Amino acid sequence: MKTIQIAHGSGGQAMQQLINDLFMQAFTNPWLNEQEDQARLSLAQFTAHGDRLAFSTDSYVIDPLFFPGGNIGKLAVCGTANDVAVSGAVPRFLSCGFILEEGLEMATLEAVVTSMAQTANAAGIAIVTGDTKVVPRGAADKLFINTAGLGAIPADVQWGAQSLTPGDVLLVSGTLGDHGATILNLREQLGLDGALSSDCAVLTPLIQTLRNIPGVKALRDATRGGVNAVAHEFAHTSGCGIELHEQHLPVNDAVRGVCELLGLEPLNFANEGKLVIAVRRDAAEQALAQLRSHPLGHEAAIIGDVVERKGVRLTGLYGIKRTLDLPHAEPLPRIC
Amino acid sequence: MKTIQIAHGSGGQAMQQLINDLFMQAFTNPWLNEQEDQARLSLAQFTAHGDRLAFSTDSYVIDPLFFPGGNIGKLAVCGTANDVAVSGAVPRFLSCGFILEEGLEMATLEAVVTSMAQTANAAGIAIVTGDTKVVPRGAADKLFINTAGLGAIPADVQWGAQSLTPGDVLLVSGTLGDHGATILNLREQLGLDGALSSDCAVLTPLIQTLRNIPGVKALRDATRGGVNAVAHEFAHTSGCGIELHEQHLPVNDAVRGVCELLGLEPLNFANEGKLVIAVRRDAAEQALAQLRSHPLGHEAAIIGDVVERKGVRLTGLYGIKRTLDLPHAEPLPRIC
Repeated sequence: MKTIQIAHGSGGQAMQQLINDLFMQAFTNPWLNEQEDQARLSLAQFTAHGDRLAFSTDSYVIDPLFFPGGNIGKLAVCGTANDVAVSGAVPRFLSCGFILEEGLEMATLEAVVTSMAQTANAAGIAIVTGDTKVVPRGAADKLFINTAGLGAIPADVQWGAQSLTPGDVLLVSGTLGDHGATILNLREQLGLDGALSSDCAVLTPLIQTLRNIPGVKALRDATRGGVNAVAHEFAHTSGCGIELHEQHLPVNDAVRGVCELLGLEPLNFANEGKLVIAVRRDAAEQALAQLRSHPLGHEAAIIGDVVERKGVRLTGLYGIKRTLDLPHAEPLPRIC
Repeated sequence: MKTIQIAHGSGGQAMQQLINDLFMQAFTNPWLNEQEDQARLSLAQFTAHGDRLAFSTDSYVIDPLFFPGGNIGKLAVCGTANDVAVSGAVPRFLSCGFILEEGLEMATLEAVVTSMAQTANAAGIAIVTGDTKVVPRGAADKLFINTAGLGAIPADVQWGAQSLTPGDVLLVSGTLGDHGATILNLREQLGLDGALSSDCAVLTPLIQTLRNIPGVKALRDATRGGVNAVAHEFAHTSGCGIELHEQHLPVNDAVRGVCELLGLEPLNFANEGKLVIAVRRDAAEQALAQLRSHPLGHEAAIIGDVVERKGVRLTGLYGIKRTLDLPHAEPLPRIC
């Protein structure tokens, strides 16, 4: 069985061979193929589409590496692409840094890299620069990936949470907690394997449906910390409060099952393909219709309001409001 | 003793507090302070200085975290800044992703972050977007960092190894192998502690001295794999050969001592603050003078030639040429 050796990260022949045989084959594009120490990207291709560069990074340490709906490679493309895309930019370029544990099966790395390449290609994203490190057995757990992403923000898009005011409305683009519940089910062996799948997806096409709606004010993808964390960020940045309505929260039955089983709250669960959107009230129906017209948003819903009174609250099924604190921690580590 | 907990990477309150109390304090700048999911960088500040964006990434897994001349944080700024700067760009912006092991001492993280901030500030670089992941004890070794960097390449700079032709000359900006020998000494306890120090440095000011010399053709910083790896890259990309002259290689006494002790070759040792530069022969003296006029380049030397005959060769002290293969692996893992 072919495995990753220390030599694959050493700067010598073994590393060059891994780069040539795997990464250059899978990710091939004119920028990467130059094989300089940096990708050289024409600035004209950014200025043609916007006036600002969106730049974001995430490291991915998810355990297990493969899960229903995706794997660490797909996640590493989707997650960073989405962090760029919620600015209104179309993500175009990614960097990619691998940290590999000695002894990792080459077939595992190949499957991850192939999935990254497929996800990136399908989204029109080029992986243009990269790095590979190998650490001895036990110094890392199998495989970590970092990606950083770039895209141009159109001049007419000025989304940001500081513009929220009381009266605005909160939407979510679909069901809550699918990614988090999927990983929890795998890790805790809850036995719901057929019913759960990560929502891991590049959201650019869904986000672009919102671009020409003037009332759209701010977007976030609700990853670690879930929709609750986004509500707290929106509240903090705008100086307003947020009130969510429990009865309007879209949640899959299996996710609700996991939550009830473990006494957890789907609002706190990680998503990897869901947006939270703040819009002016008079634009809410239009935004909702746009979201629902796209396959990635067909279960979109209006879930709450921006209000004067600070804090984040949840109105329960019987109309009683309770404060939603941001938990100290999420239910489980290595969710993404 | 305060340590990193799983909660610090969870997307909840503990993570928000770590971000606010440590990262936002140390790295503070207008882009980071917006606390959106992505930094938003005016494209005008790139187009004012060039026509192409240089984009590069590296992950840092060095062991030990602290060493004479630097630490993993300083290295994570210098290494990526240099990969951007060798294109001719002035590196301006970095992203930063931390992977932390549960139980890491908070004081260790603080020292690393402080060093990153100091190194970046001194080089005019802003750390504008970031990410923090925490993995359980044993799933990573203490602390890994990824950085990705951006800068604009001036339109009149067209450096690249494909332009090398026979007759060109190779320069190095100073002594070989200081970083590699320093880490090797620490790890193998060779007892040369006072005499060795990493050359870890941001090379932008040194590189900028070369910008207006028309005969400069290609630059690399000689990190993993050392000057030998750069010579092989230059040879491979240009389709030419490279001949180096042993008697002209600048090597510190202590580094030479480590090499003789262990039967190793300073040409293969990692550097973190040394350039290899290919120039037209008629520009070599001017480039050498420019390099030597700068503190980071005062031991610069002409070390070799680009030749017709393919391959990389070393002319020894007695004039005998031998082929320099690219080793299968470097002397030690986790060098950077």
